[in-house]
Amino acid sequence: MNIAAIILAAGQGTRMQSDLPKVLHQIGSAPMIIHAMASANTLDPQQMIVVTGHGGQQVANAVGDWRDDVSFATQDEQLGTAHAVQQAAPALDGFDGDAVVLYGDTPFISGDTLAAMQSARATGAAVVVLGFDTAQPGGYGRLIVGPDGLEAIVEAKEATPEQLAITLCNSGVVMADAATLMDLVNAVGNDNAKGEYYLTDIVGIARSRGLTCAAVTCAEQETMGVNSRVDLAAAEAVFQWNRRGRALDEGVTLTAPETVFFAFDTHIGRDVSIAPNVVFGPGVTVETGAEIRAFCHLEGCHVAEGAQIGPYARLRPGAEIGGGARVGNFVEVKNAVLHEGAKVNHLTYIGDAEIGKRANIGAGTITCNYDGVFKHKTTIGDDAFIGSNSSLVAPLTIADAGYVASGSTVTTNINAGDLAIARARQVNKPGLGARMVARLRALKEKS
Amino acid sequence: MNIAAIILAAGQGTRMQSDLPKVLHQIGSAPMIIHAMASANTLDPQQMIVVTGHGGQQVANAVGDWRDDVSFATQDEQLGTAHAVQQAAPALDGFDGDAVVLYGDTPFISGDTLAAMQSARATGAAVVVLGFDTAQPGGYGRLIVGPDGLEAIVEAKEATPEQLAITLCNSGVVMADAATLMDLVNAVGNDNAKGEYYLTDIVGIARSRGLTCAAVTCAEQETMGVNSRVDLAAAEAVFQWNRRGRALDEGVTLTAPETVFFAFDTHIGRDVSIAPNVVFGPGVTVETGAEIRAFCHLEGCHVAEGAQIGPYARLRPGAEIGGGARVGNFVEVKNAVLHEGAKVNHLTYIGDAEIGKRANIGAGTITCNYDGVFKHKTTIGDDAFIGSNSSLVAPLTIADAGYVASGSTVTTNINAGDLAIARARQVNKPGLGARMVARLRALKEKS
Amino acid sequence: MNIAAIILAAGQGTRMQSDLPKVLHQIGSAPMIIHAMASANTLDPQQMIVVTGHGGQQVANAVGDWRDDVSFATQDEQLGTAHAVQQAAPALDGFDGDAVVLYGDTPFISGDTLAAMQSARATGAAVVVLGFDTAQPGGYGRLIVGPDGLEAIVEAKEATPEQLAITLCNSGVVMADAATLMDLVNAVGNDNAKGEYYLTDIVGIARSRGLTCAAVTCAEQETMGVNSRVDLAAAEAVFQWNRRGRALDEGVTLTAPETVFFAFDTHIGRDVSIAPNVVFGPGVTVETGAEIRAFCHLEGCHVAEGAQIGPYARLRPGAEIGGGARVGNFVEVKNAVLHEGAKVNHLTYIGDAEIGKRANIGAGTITCNYDGVFKHKTTIGDDAFIGSNSSLVAPLTIADAGYVASGSTVTTNINAGDLAIARARQVNKPGLGARMVARLRALKEKS
Repeated sequence: MNIAAIILAAGQGTRMQSDLPKVLHQIGSAPMIIHAMASANTLDPQQMIVVTGHGGQQVANAVGDWRDDVSFATQDEQLGTAHAVQQAAPALDGFDGDAVVLYGDTPFISGDTLAAMQSARATGAAVVVLGFDTAQPGGYGRLIVGPDGLEAIVEAKEATPEQLAITLCNSGVVMADAATLMDLVNAVGNDNAKGEYYLTDIVGIARSRGLTCAAVTCAEQETMGVNSRVDLAAAEAVFQWNRRGRALDEGVTLTAPETVFFAFDTHIGRDVSIAPNVVFGPGVTVETGAEIRAFCHLEGCHVAEGAQIGPYARLRPGAEIGGGARVGNFVEVKNAVLHEGAKVNHLTYIGDAEIGKRANIGAGTITCNYDGVFKHKTTIGDDAFIGSNSSLVAPLTIADAGYVASGSTVTTNINAGDLAIARARQVNKPGLGARMVARLRALKEKS
Repeated sequence: MNIAAIILAAGQGTRMQSDLPKVLHQIGSAPMIIHAMASANTLDPQQMIVVTGHGGQQVANAVGDWRDDVSFATQDEQLGTAHAVQQAAPALDGFDGDAVVLYGDTPFISGDTLAAMQSARATGAAVVVLGFDTAQPGGYGRLIVGPDGLEAIVEAKEATPEQLAITLCNSGVVMADAATLMDLVNAVGNDNAKGEYYLTDIVGIARSRGLTCAAVTCAEQETMGVNSRVDLAAAEAVFQWNRRGRALDEGVTLTAPETVFFAFDTHIGRDVSIAPNVVFGPGVTVETGAEIRAFCHLEGCHVAEGAQIGPYARLRPGAEIGGGARVGNFVEVKNAVLHEGAKVNHLTYIGDAEIGKRANIGAGTITCNYDGVFKHKTTIGDDAFIGSNSSLVAPLTIADAGYVASGSTVTTNINAGDLAIARARQVNKPGLGARMVARLRALKEKS
Repeated sequence: MNIAAIILAAGQGTRMQSDLPKVLHQIGSAPMIIHAMASANTLDPQQMIVVTGHGGQQVANAVGDWRDDVSFATQDEQLGTAHAVQQAAPALDGFDGDAVVLYGDTPFISGDTLAAMQSARATGAAVVVLGFDTAQPGGYGRLIVGPDGLEAIVEAKEATPEQLAITLCNSGVVMADAATLMDLVNAVGNDNAKGEYYLTDIVGIARSRGLTCAAVTCAEQETMGVNSRVDLAAAEAVFQWNRRGRALDEGVTLTAPETVFFAFDTHIGRDVSIAPNVVFGPGVTVETGAEIRAFCHLEGCHVAEGAQIGPYARLRPGAEIGGGARVGNFVEVKNAVLHEGAKVNHLTYIGDAEIGKRANIGAGTITCNYDGVFKHKTTIGDDAFIGSNSSLVAPLTIADAGYVASGSTVTTNINAGDLAIARARQVNKPGLGARMVARLRALKEKS
């Protein structure tokens, strides 16, 4: 069965107190709408339509950075969820199959839940609504389920005391045949306090037309919506705890899980150990048996088996750390390959570089990769030794087993096995240090 | 109505296991007595009197660093809270108005609560006592409230079973006409197990003189007192959670609120995003839209709109980061201005400096600002380019668009647009690197 | 009374999803079996026998790194706990005294609890079993205690409803005369669903022989076992909270206890203050009044009174920080002594060095201690001044009050009070900086 996903993302999100459209606020380093789209994607949809409103262009641009198979529909006025779904009609013109309505600010609907909704459709329900059981139903709409399936959705304000006691609530997620959905949505009226068109009303309309409706239930956490920064922080916490739990189950050691922050796409191998206070940005893979020490920050990088990273290492996009290699404290690596067994242990900047196997980069080494306009590459061979506090002025090639004396500024290529030295002659001036300090102190006392 | 605040701060705090007077232990980077004084200050008091005892001079010095409008009274012997209040009498001589008694180890009484106590005074109560409702009244004194207002304060030890069931407890905070308060306090006796003079007793005395008493209630959390390091950590946690909640409400993104630590006076603008593990010391303002990445430490600094800080950036007092400027990883900035768009991205120390608009400071640059006695200034112009791993020996001026070649030690000023280079000539010695390493390895094998 | 400890450590720990034997996973920076052995050690045992199975050699090697007084017994097939205890028999041949059976994956049994078990033995019980009271007895074996002491251990599966209501559960820890224990263990059969020999069965056998059994109860937390990474993280959390609580009780300031991670052997003095996000590896002592700022990482080091460390300081094994000395941000110290009042404040690597009293090491200084094969020592005298961004090429001695000009690479020793300078001459090329950047920009535009 074909399926189309309609993702509503037009809300202003006033309570976020932000200039950024609500659905672009991030969870696990990805905009929350991307999480909703990832949910939809578990259905392998033929079409994905995002309905935007406030900040629509910004949303479209951001979504475009992540996916290029999305259509956008615009809801200029926010006249309610049914009205929002209507805007997707042109994009669905001629589409034959089902449609599911999801929300850009509800990031955690699982693939299993959507599959359960599909099953309910397959067993004859024209409209399937996703509900959740909650201990605190409060102001949520209640799902009234009877012998005929889902019989009604009743708003809390209009519910009888018996109905208020119901704990199965409406998530807003619905699935139906796309053409049926549009028919139902077109029949929704706005004769209510706010004058809005509510998607909820399609259940009553469907029933009045003799269509069967069904409710599918998921865990309350999946339906968690984000309306404020507090909600956003809570959603991030849920994401992180789920992700940490998965890592533990997969055989990752997390000394203090509560201090490790993953991105939506972090891949961590078995028997990797991660010390306290590690932050993963997007695009990180860490292979089996690698060790990530405390206070590391990794983005867009690959760490091979048995490599040791940190403490206080920052791996930036394009860092490729070979098997058994080491990146130590106060070291930044960007767009650079460290081959197997290379060591960059202390206070070093490696940018736009390739470093050979077993090469040793001394403390305080800087690849001088930028001339103010262009970035240039540094290539260092296998078994090379770069003495401490050296400046490697790129473009530069140091061949295998090349040796740089400590404190050198290297501007010319070094052949295999050669030693390069670039130091000023040391002059010791007898007694001058002590005299100078004495003079300065005397000055200071006067002042 | 005039009002005077009497802040009791004489206790030894034995359970703190500390040589520091209890009230000087910090919450949100300020001594806890400063929080109590800030509460008092919401009343705009004409006088603030701190009663000190143990470590009195240390308390007076510390308070003096924060406020210069405080009188100190000394309680040489700790004979109870009524006795402590008595010590404030000389400082209040001739004062016409109310007095409120607060505690240096009770930092969270809110301005609203004190205002409610003033209202109770205004509606006729001679003595107003602050109470709190608690699920665990345990050993607290109970407030007995009847048709005539507050009728008694009963110590838990002397309470009947009926009284023990009361959950409204005594915080110790009282407000009364200053002269009345002193009269009442002078009437308190010490005929009790510890032989101490309890401020609590003034309610009974007032009632016996026909004065009306009233109880005002606040949230239990406001009356939280600190008697041990565990209490102190708990109070810090309360402070931080309140402060984080405020930031979220004001439109700050906190990815992981539980990992961000604010100071009492941190100001954060709307749409600032703060990544995990950021610590704010006192005196920090961050403007709208700035980004504070993970693992940053900021004190006494100002970050303008749209600046990007970190990860792993340390901004120390006097750091002034201009709009859109960037301070990157393993960078320390102290007493220095970075003008708009300046970039200091990696492994750099900027101290006592001014850096022009759009200037680019390369990785590993060090401002050599100290000669062992004096600190000197480095001035760098707009659009200047400082090559990586340079040493800038202050005092030094590099004019607009000045260019320093990587690895240079710069001691002489550079005019606008000039290029400075200070590098030793590189010599490559064929085969020497490989021979040397071979020799050393042979030596090692022998040893 | 002599006592022998038998520590069972043969389990595979499949649920850990790890190639590392379960008992070698760490808590508080020590393998969990070491915690179990430390518990046993509170009894001052004459013999300690570890029964290994899966990864036995790895366990023996790891234990050997910590203790050299341990015998190992091998359980080749895992046929149950009674079978495991049997393997210890040869090692106990001729031993006269008691034996206690502990578990390598149960790290928190306290010395007080073991002492209570000894008391129960002394008052006549032939077999003493450790139990714990729990609100969720679930599948644990229940201890049936009657007038005659411990009457039976009933597995949950075989328990009557009345027995299931019992909340006193079996921890598996037992103590008995060693010879008696072996007799009982030899009598255990394997006529059960799994065909295993259960240590639990010795209670029934002992009773049938007319021996008295007794149950001793401890807090549930002490009996916490580790079977998965989630359990391991939970055990680490318990360890850390207990350790943090102890630090607070002993007069340490922890601004945010939840962010400080201790090792099993961390020693922290009174009035030490520890800011958020500090990680202690093994072997750290911090003396009274020292200050550990945020984001520090300490292992194998000693910090004397009043020293200030961090933020972002990494002290590695062999770092010895003298009284009042300072180690600042982005500084790594390894195998080095800083004498009283020495300062190493910024972006520095100090390795294999000794630094004199009040010496000042400038920002960006690097001790170049490695030539690719050997490590060499740097010795710096009292009151020396090392200018910023210097490279100190070891072996090197700088005598008292020696002075190094900023940006120098120092290769030759410096006598007392002498000034050393090793800088290239600075050349300023008029207009070249601006011309070069313009040319590069033009190139970039073309490309």
